[in-house]
Amino acid sequence: MTQSNLTHFNNAGEAHMVDVGAKAVTQRVAVCEGLIEMLPDTLALIMAGNHKKGDVLGIARIAGIMASKRTADLIPLCHPLPLTHVEIQLLPQPEFNRVHCLTTVKTNGQTGVEMEALTATQIALLTIYDMCKAVDRGMVIQSVRLLEKSGGKSGHWQRSEV
Amino acid sequence: MTQSNLTHFNNAGEAHMVDVGAKAVTQRVAVCEGLIEMLPDTLALIMAGNHKKGDVLGIARIAGIMASKRTADLIPLCHPLPLTHVEIQLLPQPEFNRVHCLTTVKTNGQTGVEMEALTATQIALLTIYDMCKAVDRGMVIQSVRLLEKSGGKSGHWQRSEV
Amino acid sequence: MTQSNLTHFNNAGEAHMVDVGAKAVTQRVAVCEGLIEMLPDTLALIMAGNHKKGDVLGIARIAGIMASKRTADLIPLCHPLPLTHVEIQLLPQPEFNRVHCLTTVKTNGQTGVEMEALTATQIALLTIYDMCKAVDRGMVIQSVRLLEKSGGKSGHWQRSEV
Amino acid sequence: MTQSNLTHFNNAGEAHMVDVGAKAVTQRVAVCEGLIEMLPDTLALIMAGNHKKGDVLGIARIAGIMASKRTADLIPLCHPLPLTHVEIQLLPQPEFNRVHCLTTVKTNGQTGVEMEALTATQIALLTIYDMCKAVDRGMVIQSVRLLEKSGGKSGHWQRSEV
Amino acid sequence: MTQSNLTHFNNAGEAHMVDVGAKAVTQRVAVCEGLIEMLPDTLALIMAGNHKKGDVLGIARIAGIMASKRTADLIPLCHPLPLTHVEIQLLPQPEFNRVHCLTTVKTNGQTGVEMEALTATQIALLTIYDMCKAVDRGMVIQSVRLLEKSGGKSGHWQRSEV
Amino acid sequence: MTQSNLTHFNNAGEAHMVDVGAKAVTQRVAVCEGLIEMLPDTLALIMAGNHKKGDVLGIARIAGIMASKRTADLIPLCHPLPLTHVEIQLLPQPEFNRVHCLTTVKTNGQTGVEMEALTATQIALLTIYDMCKAVDRGMVIQSVRLLEKSGGKSGHWQRSEV
Repeated sequence: MTQSNLTHFNNAGEAHMVDVGAKAVTQRVAVCEGLIEMLPDTLALIMAGNHKKGDVLGIARIAGIMASKRTADLIPLCHPLPLTHVEIQLLPQPEFNRVHCLTTVKTNGQTGVEMEALTATQIALLTIYDMCKAVDRGMVIQSVRLLEKSGGKSGHWQRSEV
Repeated sequence: MTQSNLTHFNNAGEAHMVDVGAKAVTQRVAVCEGLIEMLPDTLALIMAGNHKKGDVLGIARIAGIMASKRTADLIPLCHPLPLTHVEIQLLPQPEFNRVHCLTTVKTNGQTGVEMEALTATQIALLTIYDMCKAVDRGMVIQSVRLLEKSGGKSGHWQRSEV
Repeated sequence: MTQSNLTHFNNAGEAHMVDVGAKAVTQRVAVCEGLIEMLPDTLALIMAGNHKKGDVLGIARIAGIMASKRTADLIPLCHPLPLTHVEIQLLPQPEFNRVHCLTTVKTNGQTGVEMEALTATQIALLTIYDMCKAVDRGMVIQSVRLLEKSGGKSGHWQRSEV
Repeated sequence: MTQSNLTHFNNAGEAHMVDVGAKAVTQRVAVCEGLIEMLPDTLALIMAGNHKKGDVLGIARIAGIMASKRTADLIPLCHPLPLTHVEIQLLPQPEFNRVHCLTTVKTNGQTGVEMEALTATQIALLTIYDMCKAVDRGMVIQSVRLLEKSGGKSGHWQRSEV
Repeated sequence: MTQSNLTHFNNAGEAHMVDVGAKAVTQRVAVCEGLIEMLPDTLALIMAGNHKKGDVLGIARIAGIMASKRTADLIPLCHPLPLTHVEIQLLPQPEFNRVHCLTTVKTNGQTGVEMEALTATQIALLTIYDMCKAVDRGMVIQSVRLLEKSGGKSGHWQRSEV
Repeated sequence: MTQSNLTHFNNAGEAHMVDVGAKAVTQRVAVCEGLIEMLPDTLALIMAGNHKKGDVLGIARIAGIMASKRTADLIPLCHPLPLTHVEIQLLPQPEFNRVHCLTTVKTNGQTGVEMEALTATQIALLTIYDMCKAVDRGMVIQSVRLLEKSGGKSGHWQRSEV
């Protein structure tokens, strides 16, 4: 593994947006996950609100979907991509005092959508933090990572341990 | 701790942007941190590039600073704030196969800047992911959390264990 | 009433962002409203979803709040303002086959927040359209208008008939 | 008509960006309209300015075109689309004391452009409000609605009464 | 003049958003200019259109004003500032086959508005390029520079030769 | 050359986003350049910092790449385009007391990428101004212009003198 493996740099070591113009347009899928850990009482509040009022998770889901569309604005060398699908599941896990986020993003394009899926996950989890920070400043975001990707020349990739 | 502690909802359980108009304008500071874990070879590449060419950390720092200014665009109920200072330290920790991110944000305003500091941290770490994912898809973002905040009515808060 | 009353133009008839630098910083409030008319069945679907799942109005509220923060990006000669409060009520009115939107925006600033309140209202109503258009393309947005404003030199204004 | 007709929700009632990846790329067209009602004197000012200086309608047209490109940033579940054509006609109708807006948007894509046309219309009308509000706070935006759409599986749709 | 004069870097040579929190809030003004040179026929077209239809300069002025509000989104280490005034004059100079742009920006803030004035100028000139490039690809943007600034600790600065 | 050559206006002289829907999707390339002139000491500072710390040019490059992705947000009648490649070279030219910027942008699309290349160049040069203005307010941006374009019906174009 050498410096030249970092494709975001040209031979002079200068950053560029990699030329993907010759790549095939294929369906690209990325799945990733992340967690936010909190106090048991905070999670109880979120769960109480979820289906009636004070819908923290519903708002976080919207924030994550909207953020996926801003990825190329935020990540300097990311290609702009017209996404065809974004799905975010936010699952309270009271046995672990946390909310689990699972995000799937798809496009038909010349490059993958890992960054879109990770950005959506991060902003969804941050939105949970924002809405609950008045009662629990100590919440921690953990294990934001890619689980699986498919499409493109590099093909299918799956995390070995999940 | 009851539902009414989630100040982002009004009495009807509907989301709103909390009225901060009567709060004092004071200096607000937030410090937060986060990590990205990777393969030893990936970290070696980042460290090799850092001071000559292929400057992954320099680009991630810029991305994080720029993202702090987009926080109110990303987090639905966040107040827009004119930031007065943003500083991001990205420190390779080869003994742990990771890069540590420490972010400080300041404003003179009517509400705190925790969300700006956390957003900057998240996007800085995601940018490292983006620039190295061609060689290491398995990188994981960990422990994104607030370390300290000051200013405003709620005063000084510091994480007990760091 | 002469052309010179259109303050967004200078003496040469050219558009400019009006100089508000000498105006006092006061609390500014704007309240506005709007409607979206639809088929009875569409409104029934929205009302069924509102408190359990398929929360159209909750998502529209978030979209409106976020849009209020983008107003200066959208309206060419609008001054950027740090909003201190945004509240959006979306009330189904089955007797009229419509949803009513009532928006309140506040700031402490040198110019008013009418445009922010109107933008929030427009985007909240458009989001309802987006989410229901698969079942009812004919929905119509009506009566988007200012109800009341206060603060600043022009003082208090209230619509005579409501 | 059941809840499952609201395609912006999955089976669990959670919002998602609908998967359009399998849809055909076809030419999509949407035409919509809207009105802004005002005092006769306000309309006279706009008409006086229109072809010489103080060009309210020219600026509103630009604002609408630019807003059409921000639609996916504003409407949470809207797919980002590369628009191929936007046209906005703003016609003073002194017999009705109003300005009429007619917007056409086109793309070659996997989903329709109704939201882009409606967003352009709304922001064009709001910009007229902004530029004239110093002389007429009571202006009202009315009848923002789709007139016609074509392209895609759902085919041609036209409003019966116009 | 040493490296430490580049205040956008900290002692470690890392970029940061400079801490302006302790600076006084004063009125800041910046005036800058720029040019776009073109073929005589192109300028004739612009001048023919200017007061009737095909208003290139009116659209460029709006684009420049809107861009001034996006400066902190574009320039990485720029502080976000609530502008209080933006004025752009676009003057055809047929004796030199060019359009001259003169921009004034003001704020009451803790840091200057040079970047806002320069960004507005650049985007106004680029918009002229965009609108005329179908007839004249060779247009050149020249002499974009600060003429004068005032406010803040560094006080008044004026270009010696203009 | 008549008014009707300005394709950004329709027959009524009103601005529109030109209909490119019937154009072929081909590879489009644009190359452009620009300069920023400065004091010899300023350039010396930039060159000293370039490969170790205080990396002005590295940050300007990132700003330019990110700006290319915002072009359609800034230039009113520009079509949004999914870029496939952006490359920016920033070369200090001490013999002329300036930095030269050379930008290449590519897409596969229905319209050209000149505006994206010019916008990237402008913002890269402005970022150099921003980072050095504390030591040299008099810097001037010069000669921002298209060098070459290819793709599309109008075919290959190259500046005669460079």
